[in-house]
Amino acid sequence: MVEVVGFDADDTLWQCQDTFDDAERLFLETVSPYASPGVDLKGVLRTTELSNLAISGYGVKAFGLSMIEAAVTSSAGAIPSRDIGILVDRINDMLREPVKLLDGVADALHAVAQTHRIVMITKGDLFHQTRKVQNSGLHHLFEHVKVVLEKDVSTYRAVLNEWGISPSTFVMVGNSVRSDILPIVELGGFGLHIPYHVTWEHEVVDAPKGTFCTVASISDVAEWLAAEHQS
Amino acid sequence: MVEVVGFDADDTLWQCQDTFDDAERLFLETVSPYASPGVDLKGVLRTTELSNLAISGYGVKAFGLSMIEAAVTSSAGAIPSRDIGILVDRINDMLREPVKLLDGVADALHAVAQTHRIVMITKGDLFHQTRKVQNSGLHHLFEHVKVVLEKDVSTYRAVLNEWGISPSTFVMVGNSVRSDILPIVELGGFGLHIPYHVTWEHEVVDAPKGTFCTVASISDVAEWLAAEHQS
Repeated sequence: MVEVVGFDADDTLWQCQDTFDDAERLFLETVSPYASPGVDLKGVLRTTELSNLAISGYGVKAFGLSMIEAAVTSSAGAIPSRDIGILVDRINDMLREPVKLLDGVADALHAVAQTHRIVMITKGDLFHQTRKVQNSGLHHLFEHVKVVLEKDVSTYRAVLNEWGISPSTFVMVGNSVRSDILPIVELGGFGLHIPYHVTWEHEVVDAPKGTFCTVASISDVAEWLAAEHQS
Repeated sequence: MVEVVGFDADDTLWQCQDTFDDAERLFLETVSPYASPGVDLKGVLRTTELSNLAISGYGVKAFGLSMIEAAVTSSAGAIPSRDIGILVDRINDMLREPVKLLDGVADALHAVAQTHRIVMITKGDLFHQTRKVQNSGLHHLFEHVKVVLEKDVSTYRAVLNEWGISPSTFVMVGNSVRSDILPIVELGGFGLHIPYHVTWEHEVVDAPKGTFCTVASISDVAEWLAAEHQS
């Protein structure tokens, strides 16, 4: 019997990946005139991001630094710094950007909050995520909000333990099968997947192993919970 | 009667500001040949940092992005991106750098841990600070570790409340009068100041108002606690 509902934030409650994809397009546009011959720009950006993950973590600032590093290396220093300035401006815009809630989110959360306790578990940069939560207008609905560095089994175990929540009474709702669903299922909880139209490559899993449900939209969560209670 | 001792981390347990000062020297060296006439390079960097604080927060990544932004604007785009690459490399080095414990820290913490509960409250980037705590070899001594965005009265109140610690039984030990001492004193706890040879300008307070003690070194903390118990 589910008592507590955990929500992921990026691309579950509010838009996120689209903004990164837009920035990547700006990067390709800005750097390609100066790229060394034969360089796969997208590949260099991806490799730079992944190789910095262990020292930088997730989030806009880490992505921004990787984007600048990739612009310099893939052009062998030929890109003018004026163009680096364009990338820096975009990063600052991303950090400043208002939170864009996805369709139906406010209504759906209010509906779920009437019957269940709600918490948020989100990955990324503490500063930027905290700012987004505070600006979302939904902060008051959450009993707890936790920004974590990685969404794996041991992190979920520690967080639920800290909050005194038993996994068997917990469902995690999110757009990433890899981060939001599989670890919670492994822990003995429920996973409820809401696919988003774009997924960061890093989050894609080929053949997800585990038992979980998928709903089309966040507006279907309250109904899923009601049905789950009857079963 | 003090039961719990809170430690700041940067420049209290391990070296931090020196690395930022080194990076600032590299910035001045690298950018000055291209700086627009009459530009106060140090001033531009400081202004850029402070104006980005509200969207970026504290930490190496935020500082790095501000440094790159300041390099581009103060040279009006004249600095070659190769030199931007030098700054990016330095930022990555800072993120990768091993933790450098200050003299006597390990012994001092072990001594305090024999008589008191120990917690850490540190400001900055969640990812980078967590990495430093884990690499410090001292992680096991701390009952709790919290990375916060700002060290003000309301943050301390919330953190102590979450941990069930009464301010009247708590002493905070740190190098910043502004961040480590005054808010805790205002909250009804104790502040124990350990001056460090450099202080980030942002942290300097002119005439600190409040009652607190100062010790010369972290090695004096256990003795201060013993004396406090007798008084």
